[in-house]
Amino acid sequence: MSVTAPLGFRAAGIAAGIKAGDARDLALVVNDGPSRAAAGVFTANRVKAAPVLWSQQVLRGGRVRAVVLNSGGANACTGAEGFQDTHATAEEAAGALGDSAGEIAVCSTGLIGERLPMDLLLPGVRVAASQLARDGGLAAADAIRTTDTVSKISFKRGDAYMVGGMAKGAGMLAPAMATMLCVLTTDADLTAEQLDTVLRAATSRTFDRLDTDGCMSTNDTVLLLASGASGVTPDLAEFEQKVTEVCADLARQLLVDAEGASKAIAIEVVGAASEDDAVKAGRAVARSNLLKCAIHGEDPNWGRVLSAVGTTDAEFEPERLNVAINGIWVCRGGAVGDDRSKVDMRPRDVTITIDLSAGAASATVHTTDLTADYVHENSAYSS
Amino acid sequence: MSVTAPLGFRAAGIAAGIKAGDARDLALVVNDGPSRAAAGVFTANRVKAAPVLWSQQVLRGGRVRAVVLNSGGANACTGAEGFQDTHATAEEAAGALGDSAGEIAVCSTGLIGERLPMDLLLPGVRVAASQLARDGGLAAADAIRTTDTVSKISFKRGDAYMVGGMAKGAGMLAPAMATMLCVLTTDADLTAEQLDTVLRAATSRTFDRLDTDGCMSTNDTVLLLASGASGVTPDLAEFEQKVTEVCADLARQLLVDAEGASKAIAIEVVGAASEDDAVKAGRAVARSNLLKCAIHGEDPNWGRVLSAVGTTDAEFEPERLNVAINGIWVCRGGAVGDDRSKVDMRPRDVTITIDLSAGAASATVHTTDLTADYVHENSAYSS
Repeated sequence: MSVTAPLGFRAAGIAAGIKAGDARDLALVVNDGPSRAAAGVFTANRVKAAPVLWSQQVLRGGRVRAVVLNSGGANACTGAEGFQDTHATAEEAAGALGDSAGEIAVCSTGLIGERLPMDLLLPGVRVAASQLARDGGLAAADAIRTTDTVSKISFKRGDAYMVGGMAKGAGMLAPAMATMLCVLTTDADLTAEQLDTVLRAATSRTFDRLDTDGCMSTNDTVLLLASGASGVTPDLAEFEQKVTEVCADLARQLLVDAEGASKAIAIEVVGAASEDDAVKAGRAVARSNLLKCAIHGEDPNWGRVLSAVGTTDAEFEPERLNVAINGIWVCRGGAVGDDRSKVDMRPRDVTITIDLSAGAASATVHTTDLTADYVHENSAYSS
Repeated sequence: MSVTAPLGFRAAGIAAGIKAGDARDLALVVNDGPSRAAAGVFTANRVKAAPVLWSQQVLRGGRVRAVVLNSGGANACTGAEGFQDTHATAEEAAGALGDSAGEIAVCSTGLIGERLPMDLLLPGVRVAASQLARDGGLAAADAIRTTDTVSKISFKRGDAYMVGGMAKGAGMLAPAMATMLCVLTTDADLTAEQLDTVLRAATSRTFDRLDTDGCMSTNDTVLLLASGASGVTPDLAEFEQKVTEVCADLARQLLVDAEGASKAIAIEVVGAASEDDAVKAGRAVARSNLLKCAIHGEDPNWGRVLSAVGTTDAEFEPERLNVAINGIWVCRGGAVGDDRSKVDMRPRDVTITIDLSAGAASATVHTTDLTADYVHENSAYSS
């Protein structure tokens, strides 16, 4: 399943020795066509890893034959040599596939600021190419994990076509793009322009609304490859819906696996003057360390919700704000509402509903609580 | 010392019973003149506590006779009733001082979303008024503490005049204003307009560059009161320097006492195209939970510095960024620099120097590490 659910794709995931032990650390996803149309969205961080700079160039052509992905090293902040390493990786894959390096995308994830062990990685690319298989999607999804405790895969069936995907990411999840690696595949037959439109729409409402720690990575990449092997050109709106469903499913899996989290928090903003305002308010709450600590402590501290909303320029009047936590309207009209002791904070899923009383638009932003485990995971070793 | 170091000021700090136990929780600072010129800066949060809304009105007149401050309750998100409570507090102080409520500022700090116990607070104002003394500055500074482990006071001597101050704040320290309470006093003779100019300049370079957790409070207030009792009208630049010194001293005390912190991190941005760019880059790094965790773990993880700088629109080229941690240039030209094992991360004070290689401007932003203790302090009880 995963990226090999749609027709026309093969994949492999192998242990090249980049990571310690014998864990898988190198994945290869190949599009056997007939089409090679592709689109990508990348981190908005201005400090971009070498594979992002490379893949952005590749995607400008709108065609991708294959994607090489490695865990065990981000190849970010590695200078001109790091870029040459990415280029060599693409060349190696092109050689193995008898194709052009200009249509090979590369993704890396792991520690920033260290060169990749090319003496291990390049032979690994050849091994992966030799193991490409129609059922290789699970091994590929496994090979891109870093601190992820589980592989993230998804697929949805459309009207005589399929959309599949895999993703990795367990920390550094923030907006303005995915902050993780994700490869989506489909056997639908669509142009690169159509894929681009659909991918931007789908990611902006899914991965972009995930914000576990406000940190934006240097390596985030989401690719959408279309083989056209089904021979079907679907209705674009229906296709966008399917891609969005796969992205939402993967985003949910990333959230649940976020580093050190004990709560999954959905921040629903309603009554907003615009969807942008709703996202803005939701994002500000999702980034409040104080609120995230309070939820960890199972404290329905709505004051911290209001003080976060108050830092935005979304349209609202402070004295018309209403806040519900797990269905209890603990704040009404900007002041004390229903009895906060009625809020059941024990479930892992916590929903905070914020009514801006300023319009009819809405959006939901997802985050997690802030825990001592998060601090531990991110202070005990370099990552 | 503290706010009563300059001539013309009396203060008191008493236990009114607002906080549990017999801790001091109510302070009164009185300006006996001959001048009452005053200026104030307030939180930029759009959700403002009742005492902020009240004191902003008072300061519009440019004159302050007295400031009433309470800990044990923020009187924020308390609706029209909360505003009436603040008004009643000012009236009570005016009655006790034989003065007008329109020149009484009020500050509150504590939990958001709960009414203050006015039956205890109003009698407390009378008691405080009866205990006003020239040496009451220390008791006043003690009475405004919440989770502060120590009182924060400072004073500097100018040319035949004095500047004194007290502050509270141990969490929720973020920019776009102080995120704490601070009363500054001077016996210099200056107009309200002069004080306003000086106060804005001083806070923008001190309190505004303190960012411990990115959270902006609903109650932040910094007031500067001038009694004119020294009869001296100092050179404005020299006076601004003194006020800035007092603010910087208090800001440093707030930082060292920040909730759960084990490291004080100075983020020096140099080589910036403008001071704004330097502050922007420094602030982004100060807000990176991942970087703050890494420093807690004594890991000189410069990749997290670059990925935070990369989220800003400050002028820089990624391949020209240099980063030093405690004096070792671990990143040169956007890539690996000197051996990171040379960095001594053991001291409590950590300095991260970021050279944007884009100009001659610089600025320093101060923050702390992110620790399990921070999570504990902010999740174990409502605050």
